[in-house]
Amino acid sequence: MSNPFFKNRGPFLIFDILNFLKINTSSVSTNVEIKDIKDLSSSNNSEITFFHSKKYKELAQKTKASFCITTESLKNELPTSCIPLIVDNVLLSVSKITSIFYPDSVKDDFDDSVNNINETNFKDKVFYGKNVLIGKNVSIGKNCKIGHNTIIEKNVIIGDNCSIGSNTIIRNSLISNNVKVLDNCVIGKHGFGFFPNKNNNLRYPHIGIVIIEENCEIGCGSTIDRGSMSNTVICKNTYLDNQIHIAHNVKIGENSIIAGQVGIAGSTIIGSNVKIGGQAGISGHIKVGNNVEIGGGSGVIKNIPDNTKVMGYPAKNIREFLRDNK
Amino acid sequence: MSNPFFKNRGPFLIFDILNFLKINTSSVSTNVEIKDIKDLSSSNNSEITFFHSKKYKELAQKTKASFCITTESLKNELPTSCIPLIVDNVLLSVSKITSIFYPDSVKDDFDDSVNNINETNFKDKVFYGKNVLIGKNVSIGKNCKIGHNTIIEKNVIIGDNCSIGSNTIIRNSLISNNVKVLDNCVIGKHGFGFFPNKNNNLRYPHIGIVIIEENCEIGCGSTIDRGSMSNTVICKNTYLDNQIHIAHNVKIGENSIIAGQVGIAGSTIIGSNVKIGGQAGISGHIKVGNNVEIGGGSGVIKNIPDNTKVMGYPAKNIREFLRDNK
Amino acid sequence: MSNPFFKNRGPFLIFDILNFLKINTSSVSTNVEIKDIKDLSSSNNSEITFFHSKKYKELAQKTKASFCITTESLKNELPTSCIPLIVDNVLLSVSKITSIFYPDSVKDDFDDSVNNINETNFKDKVFYGKNVLIGKNVSIGKNCKIGHNTIIEKNVIIGDNCSIGSNTIIRNSLISNNVKVLDNCVIGKHGFGFFPNKNNNLRYPHIGIVIIEENCEIGCGSTIDRGSMSNTVICKNTYLDNQIHIAHNVKIGENSIIAGQVGIAGSTIIGSNVKIGGQAGISGHIKVGNNVEIGGGSGVIKNIPDNTKVMGYPAKNIREFLRDNK
Repeated sequence: MSNPFFKNRGPFLIFDILNFLKINTSSVSTNVEIKDIKDLSSSNNSEITFFHSKKYKELAQKTKASFCITTESLKNELPTSCIPLIVDNVLLSVSKITSIFYPDSVKDDFDDSVNNINETNFKDKVFYGKNVLIGKNVSIGKNCKIGHNTIIEKNVIIGDNCSIGSNTIIRNSLISNNVKVLDNCVIGKHGFGFFPNKNNNLRYPHIGIVIIEENCEIGCGSTIDRGSMSNTVICKNTYLDNQIHIAHNVKIGENSIIAGQVGIAGSTIIGSNVKIGGQAGISGHIKVGNNVEIGGGSGVIKNIPDNTKVMGYPAKNIREFLRDNK
Repeated sequence: MSNPFFKNRGPFLIFDILNFLKINTSSVSTNVEIKDIKDLSSSNNSEITFFHSKKYKELAQKTKASFCITTESLKNELPTSCIPLIVDNVLLSVSKITSIFYPDSVKDDFDDSVNNINETNFKDKVFYGKNVLIGKNVSIGKNCKIGHNTIIEKNVIIGDNCSIGSNTIIRNSLISNNVKVLDNCVIGKHGFGFFPNKNNNLRYPHIGIVIIEENCEIGCGSTIDRGSMSNTVICKNTYLDNQIHIAHNVKIGENSIIAGQVGIAGSTIIGSNVKIGGQAGISGHIKVGNNVEIGGGSGVIKNIPDNTKVMGYPAKNIREFLRDNK
Repeated sequence: MSNPFFKNRGPFLIFDILNFLKINTSSVSTNVEIKDIKDLSSSNNSEITFFHSKKYKELAQKTKASFCITTESLKNELPTSCIPLIVDNVLLSVSKITSIFYPDSVKDDFDDSVNNINETNFKDKVFYGKNVLIGKNVSIGKNCKIGHNTIIEKNVIIGDNCSIGSNTIIRNSLISNNVKVLDNCVIGKHGFGFFPNKNNNLRYPHIGIVIIEENCEIGCGSTIDRGSMSNTVICKNTYLDNQIHIAHNVKIGENSIIAGQVGIAGSTIIGSNVKIGGQAGISGHIKVGNNVEIGGGSGVIKNIPDNTKVMGYPAKNIREFLRDNK
């Protein structure tokens, strides 16, 4: 993933990284520079990656990264070009190293860089309401509307012909043409990702962003969290109703319709042309195929193949659901 | 329905309407003026109506409309006084014609007609917080309170002794005496109604409003959408808890109690003295009787008769639910 | 409970209280002063308490209150030092007497005591955004951040190193050190508690507050209601995701993790180290033990013992749930 918003403070020397992880530097012969930390498939030479689950074995075997944070039991899957760095808790170590490269991605305090839109160059370009605030590193296309009390925090790109409602907050997001975001939304804050730790949980960094493609509509009171190591993406012409929650790293395909109060947990992938009824919930880390219909109130806890209709909690084939509940 | 807010741009000549729908004008002898588009029961002479489902056969047989958008298979139900206009997709055609009569009902961008209440006549009449905005065509009764950052957009009538919280947005709504609307609500935006269309869905117009009768209370973070061809109505002394979503065209009877995070889908009719437990969901287009109790977390997917208690997903008689889950 | 925020307008003479409740004063020999109204266990000499359910028999037997609002059938459980005041509806009578002692606890209109933070002493002490409003009787610790458009209404104490997001409203709350409250939350409004009454429900007073202990995080769009006769408490290092609703009098133990869109109904007690999956709902007045895991989408309708994993609606042991749904 190429990250457009969070500034990479690297490169860092590999010995410094090893010291930080409390790994003996003798395992590495030369103190090379490391430019970035990325996932297995997108990382390259002079970058560091991570490998924490057998599920990703095939990606691990092909990684081009020079170093990989992993465990004793997984290290043998890596190619010889990639030096394993053995740790006890891979994700915790990744979190720490990511925080060093991208310190701005951990904190999510309010953006104090904003100014009233009246005092910015957007004042002649955007059609806007009262008390609109605009942060640094914001770009807004032609013919856009931004409602009252809305805050476009730093790191936001908005395309042409977009309509943003009132009382909405957007940060770290890329919004394409013809998108409507209604009132009282929060888009682009960090996800609910942290390491539980007695008395003081440890937040992990969220260097992903939110991408909303063209012609989408996001209903009132919805929240869309940005990704941790990848992005949260709503593909084109997908409509979300009110009070929907989309967690970090979720991808939703194009031409999908998601009714009110639906929740989609982290890292789940939803296909195209999917219809999800009101109040349905989708577990994290699962895959819902294309052309799937999920009945209102369903709880989806496993993968759903293409072209199926499901309902229930746990969700099953809708014919089975209706038969069982006659 | 007499619509107090959206301006009717009619009359239009029937030949213009036919051309717009790509119907041959030879089916109509005289180029009469059409004053409005309404549903089967409320339409009159010189107005156009629509008939798209056998469910409405009895209403169709009695309609007083001069013209009716319908299908080949339904047209014979209409009285001879009503000329059928045959189309492929009734609702899509209705949407287009409604947009011509009521172009303002399609868009829901932020209301740029608002002014700070300090600069309006309400400044001596209403007890208000900081940064309160008031749109055009707003009326507010005696002894009302409006909290900070709240936006009363255009087309709102508020009765006496009402208390509106902070950060709330209201538009296209009629609010009776002694109503409380708490913080962070959005009331009166268009419903989640549109025609799915590859790459670019087509929104249909929402010419209905939200009506909240006297002594109601609406909890924090709730959303109540206005109706499409009819109104969304909350009858007197009904209380809604926090984070509730009421979709377009829903009617809720009086003296009802609706707990937190409940969702009611479009066009559903709820009776009087109904109690709905937290997080319950009610499907669209169904009817819940009077004196019904719906257990928390239930999913109601069919009509519920008067005086029954239901629970479960799908909701069934509560005794049955408890027996099945011993 | 010692209440730090709502002013006690007492003492009141017992004869005045009896007259108000329409009880014959002949049942009481001396017109003593009553200083406060409290629950069975915390009330003392010269105070009034209430006893409305056999469930509380043991507490009733030990109460130190001088008077107790109760029923004919329960009065014999009280010690001889406590004079019973017999009424038809205990809670309704308690509500009325509490309203006399604490009239400010019934109303929840917007706080008109607020000023822009620029005009307060906090301007040099707090790091704040645009349009921040601060009410009376507010205290804010060192190194705090408060986002744009946020309203800290009256009766709020905030500790050190706290970060409050934008568009958030807080009242009647005690927030400890290192707490993060994200955007668009409403914390400390009255709960959804009232006596249903044809045509005009009667709100009961909420003299409790919200207490959020150190190191907690509250996600975007969440609502936490203050208690009625006791407090709503989130213990230390507990994290709440987005769009969560916590009702009045709920207690949540420390080190707990609560995922998006969860709802917890009134007076429920949740233990420590509890994990609750997204969209789960917990009924009111139940007890969830320590180290419990509740699967996403579950509906918990009875007590859950320590160290158990449950899932389903109604929630049952997770092994049973998975077996039944193979």
